[in-house]
Amino acid sequence: MIIVMRIGAPEEEVDAIVKQIESSGATAHIDHGSERTIIGIRSARHDLDESMFRLLPGVEDVKRISKPYKLASREFHPANTEFNVGGMEIGGKKIALMAGPCSVESEEQIVEVAKAVKAAGATCLRGGAFKPRSSPYAFQGLGEEGLKYMQTAGKVAGLPVVTEVMRIDQIDMVCKYADILQVGARNMQNYDLLKELGRIGKPVFLKRGMAAMLEDLLMSAEYLLAGGCEQVILCERGIRTFETATRNTMDIASVAVIKRFSHLPIVIDPSHAAGTVEYVASLALGAVAAGADGLMIEVHPNPKCAKSDGQQSLTPPQFAELVQRLKRVAEAIDREV
Amino acid sequence: MIIVMRIGAPEEEVDAIVKQIESSGATAHIDHGSERTIIGIRSARHDLDESMFRLLPGVEDVKRISKPYKLASREFHPANTEFNVGGMEIGGKKIALMAGPCSVESEEQIVEVAKAVKAAGATCLRGGAFKPRSSPYAFQGLGEEGLKYMQTAGKVAGLPVVTEVMRIDQIDMVCKYADILQVGARNMQNYDLLKELGRIGKPVFLKRGMAAMLEDLLMSAEYLLAGGCEQVILCERGIRTFETATRNTMDIASVAVIKRFSHLPIVIDPSHAAGTVEYVASLALGAVAAGADGLMIEVHPNPKCAKSDGQQSLTPPQFAELVQRLKRVAEAIDREV
Amino acid sequence: MIIVMRIGAPEEEVDAIVKQIESSGATAHIDHGSERTIIGIRSARHDLDESMFRLLPGVEDVKRISKPYKLASREFHPANTEFNVGGMEIGGKKIALMAGPCSVESEEQIVEVAKAVKAAGATCLRGGAFKPRSSPYAFQGLGEEGLKYMQTAGKVAGLPVVTEVMRIDQIDMVCKYADILQVGARNMQNYDLLKELGRIGKPVFLKRGMAAMLEDLLMSAEYLLAGGCEQVILCERGIRTFETATRNTMDIASVAVIKRFSHLPIVIDPSHAAGTVEYVASLALGAVAAGADGLMIEVHPNPKCAKSDGQQSLTPPQFAELVQRLKRVAEAIDREV
Amino acid sequence: MIIVMRIGAPEEEVDAIVKQIESSGATAHIDHGSERTIIGIRSARHDLDESMFRLLPGVEDVKRISKPYKLASREFHPANTEFNVGGMEIGGKKIALMAGPCSVESEEQIVEVAKAVKAAGATCLRGGAFKPRSSPYAFQGLGEEGLKYMQTAGKVAGLPVVTEVMRIDQIDMVCKYADILQVGARNMQNYDLLKELGRIGKPVFLKRGMAAMLEDLLMSAEYLLAGGCEQVILCERGIRTFETATRNTMDIASVAVIKRFSHLPIVIDPSHAAGTVEYVASLALGAVAAGADGLMIEVHPNPKCAKSDGQQSLTPPQFAELVQRLKRVAEAIDREV
Repeated sequence: MIIVMRIGAPEEEVDAIVKQIESSGATAHIDHGSERTIIGIRSARHDLDESMFRLLPGVEDVKRISKPYKLASREFHPANTEFNVGGMEIGGKKIALMAGPCSVESEEQIVEVAKAVKAAGATCLRGGAFKPRSSPYAFQGLGEEGLKYMQTAGKVAGLPVVTEVMRIDQIDMVCKYADILQVGARNMQNYDLLKELGRIGKPVFLKRGMAAMLEDLLMSAEYLLAGGCEQVILCERGIRTFETATRNTMDIASVAVIKRFSHLPIVIDPSHAAGTVEYVASLALGAVAAGADGLMIEVHPNPKCAKSDGQQSLTPPQFAELVQRLKRVAEAIDREV
Repeated sequence: MIIVMRIGAPEEEVDAIVKQIESSGATAHIDHGSERTIIGIRSARHDLDESMFRLLPGVEDVKRISKPYKLASREFHPANTEFNVGGMEIGGKKIALMAGPCSVESEEQIVEVAKAVKAAGATCLRGGAFKPRSSPYAFQGLGEEGLKYMQTAGKVAGLPVVTEVMRIDQIDMVCKYADILQVGARNMQNYDLLKELGRIGKPVFLKRGMAAMLEDLLMSAEYLLAGGCEQVILCERGIRTFETATRNTMDIASVAVIKRFSHLPIVIDPSHAAGTVEYVASLALGAVAAGADGLMIEVHPNPKCAKSDGQQSLTPPQFAELVQRLKRVAEAIDREV
Repeated sequence: MIIVMRIGAPEEEVDAIVKQIESSGATAHIDHGSERTIIGIRSARHDLDESMFRLLPGVEDVKRISKPYKLASREFHPANTEFNVGGMEIGGKKIALMAGPCSVESEEQIVEVAKAVKAAGATCLRGGAFKPRSSPYAFQGLGEEGLKYMQTAGKVAGLPVVTEVMRIDQIDMVCKYADILQVGARNMQNYDLLKELGRIGKPVFLKRGMAAMLEDLLMSAEYLLAGGCEQVILCERGIRTFETATRNTMDIASVAVIKRFSHLPIVIDPSHAAGTVEYVASLALGAVAAGADGLMIEVHPNPKCAKSDGQQSLTPPQFAELVQRLKRVAEAIDREV
Repeated sequence: MIIVMRIGAPEEEVDAIVKQIESSGATAHIDHGSERTIIGIRSARHDLDESMFRLLPGVEDVKRISKPYKLASREFHPANTEFNVGGMEIGGKKIALMAGPCSVESEEQIVEVAKAVKAAGATCLRGGAFKPRSSPYAFQGLGEEGLKYMQTAGKVAGLPVVTEVMRIDQIDMVCKYADILQVGARNMQNYDLLKELGRIGKPVFLKRGMAAMLEDLLMSAEYLLAGGCEQVILCERGIRTFETATRNTMDIASVAVIKRFSHLPIVIDPSHAAGTVEYVASLALGAVAAGADGLMIEVHPNPKCAKSDGQQSLTPPQFAELVQRLKRVAEAIDREV
């Protein structure tokens, strides 16, 4: 951490700060510049709070030097994190394709989708049994029944299953049926949920919040890693900006940024970013070429009748056609779909 | 809802849409314009989903006419919602002043603050026992012990108490000690939490999420109201924008917008918006003049040593001085602090 | 346009609005819904202003139905706009590669870069002679001297030249030396400049403003098209959001959105979006796979000594290597670099 | 400036950077921390570019210590800038009230407004003769004719006049008629315009761009000040965010932030922020209480028939009533309207 003093701050103020630094077990390094004094803090502690210095007399600004996450950082873990969940490889050469409907609506529906996306090349089945809906009057999901259908569909199709868990008291139930537990964008900073999920020994699929900086996303991953979970998959699904042509603005640079600062795999969800089926293919192709480790795509057998997110869902034939295009792009960058 | 057809969409496409509308129990009203056809939908159902029409052939766009919330709307409830919690009036002429530290750190600390803010003119004590922290290595709050200290401090000072509840299984515990339950910005769209809180019969203080539109905030309030809670207080605490001079951008227009579309009281939290003590007074004065029904302000006896948010906390004397200034502004708009 | 009346608005208010509509030469179509009345306006005029209705008694909202641009729309011009400038094809199968330094610094520098990027596969030379710099103390460009160097470099390398024009009284001068005139992001809504540029008969490269919606970008293109310019190239270069990991957030969905609503070619500038050389390749590959018609990339022979934007500039060898990767991705989507 | 080295960067890399620093005439100060080395740069030069260090081997990050503006800073000029233009005081105790229509539409219209706003308490007449309109088909202003009408109206009412200048070749003309030259939000970073305006010796009213950080605004002011203009008025008129309930998000914290870092007066334009007349009064009252040095408010004798921005214009009686309320709030903070 670095403390920037106000121009003309008297020596007593500098001394007072040095004392405060030393009383917290750190050491101070003073640089008397021509214009102003700068004080560097060396500390072995990870939790030294910059705000404790900000209010001291004479302080103009406090600048953090190190990233606030550790276990999630590439400095700590230089190699990419790669793993296999129920047959799906992630983090390596192979690009994961997670596909399925927004909501599980019936056993027939989810089994039909599962078979179709598997045939097309998907490596994981997605689907929601608990749905966070902005309206209390909207369909809220089938609950445990939906989880059972998903499990059945995953088995029938030979695909691992990823589904959202929204509250702590659902974790045990969801663990019975799902291979990967998803934390939704609205829960990315539900730290209690993250703490519990860190302990259960299952892979976690962590979606970026709509207003979360990539650093915030890595801090939330840090909660999972600190709890003991090593199989964390990050997911970019669009952030909220002033642009209304799309539901969210897909931050494709998240791929390169995450790859630079972290070892964790990063998946893109073009469906929630686009908000409309017309843009999904373009975004998916772009994501793969940019280096994403996987895609999560909404597929529904009959989008017009979907109970949620129909307008952004591909049909199974549209998905199959997209996978063919993705294969070619993946090969062009020496990866595989 | 209104369906805008593509230019030149054939009559059969219009017919197909009319059939779909009628099969959902609604009636269609066709307007053959010179350029394109527009179809109005009349329905008594509140949950008709626009996306079911968006994918039909010939449809260019679907526009919603009504607000998606009902119980929270001023159309439904024309008069302001006013109520009294433990002696604090809110929603009427009197402006609520909720003050206290970010975190409860000890009994002494919270009792000291409670007495000081009460003496200065506060009408409610705020403080956190469970803290959502972006770092897993940061202070996470005292938990139930902190709640007890808060209750004690509230009783000693004669102030009702507001504190955050972060998870469903904490609700009962927090209810034992607190007068108002706070939903934090990161939980504004934690719909399961909102559903449970709607049922318990206590006032709820609902903070706007960092990326939430005011309509989203009212939809979250709708969850509480639909569950049976009638004493909902909305809170603007800054939204996330590109500006980094402040921690968040305080959307002061939220006051006028909420007053126009809803009957619920709206409180401003200048501390989290500012992120630094230097801007708190200016934002607080502006909020009162703009018509806010209350303020929530962080006050700490020794901000330099605060375990969280010290840099944005006023000292008790600073708070007392601010209250004097707020009184004058409140009088100037015929209200009272 | 559609006027949504307040619930319970009396018949006289509806009548008054109908009169206002008819007095402006349009016709009104009334739909008495169960909850509220909706009035459709049919008009041949393109400039009917929605705000004139918004203030009338009884009006709740006014919704625009048509896009505010016409010549830029795909409805007006269904086929893609394709053209050739000085040997560079754009808008068709071939992907344009515009490369060069941020600023022209000397004749040697720009000739060296021009030869290098041409050898690597670039189809156009970029470079700035007039530089919009946020600091008045920063290098402001070489002016006309720089334009001459660029022209020389373009001729030596056999590449057309694109360069920014910042003010109306520079247009004639820039026209003497450049093949394509660039409007920078900060000037996207400098309507006087757009009007003048529309008249001169040269292709215009129009960069999206940092806070411009894609609809705003198309409205600015409409100024050029309305002035008579048919060779307009749109450019996405990142928008301003809360994310600070990159200089700007590259809105890759702009490609699919522009392709849907407009016939104009769309180029991506990954350099200004990234702000740092580490992310440029990932963004460029993603842009091509997403369907962009071209890329504009900053290349400098010695980025460490660049007078501007050095940190986001590729070296010629880095650029050459990237082009090889782009070729493969382009082929994978049946296009060509 | 401070250079943060990568963990484990070898001594040769540090040496190379020190050499580079010294070769640019600055001195280096090395701090060998336990984890990483940090290098402070001391330089008398204001234009040292951080990017020249960013690309050097071993560099993790470069942090700027000083603000990039100087003349606009409070450190350079501790007292508030106060001045008087044609009878209007600004920057001191008295709050400036600039009012008038969006566009000058006729001599009658502007004279009528001028008299009305003067009677109500305005201190300056605003109005546009050149209008930046997003649509090429919209009313573009009366041009010089409009300027003449404004001058007449200002004289008749006894008010100085502020109006927008959009291009360099209009400056002389606008100077003939106006007392204060306005730079619109879309031109805030039109640096050539700023350079010219800095030289002419008239006060400049500089509006914040829709995507401009407050630091960017101060950098644009620096262009004016560096050119010799000392009478610069800053104006906050709302920034672009994801919230669509208002036309823009009024950043009320801009008042406190500008007051902290700069000596220049800051005016708020609630009309463009609100976008609708219903919110103007609340925003205006809030702005005055927050400490703004003035307001710019759109007033039109017949908003329903305004050629631009009618929906956000107050009528003269609404303005007069608002001024009465503003007076009371101004008194409550020991200022005057």
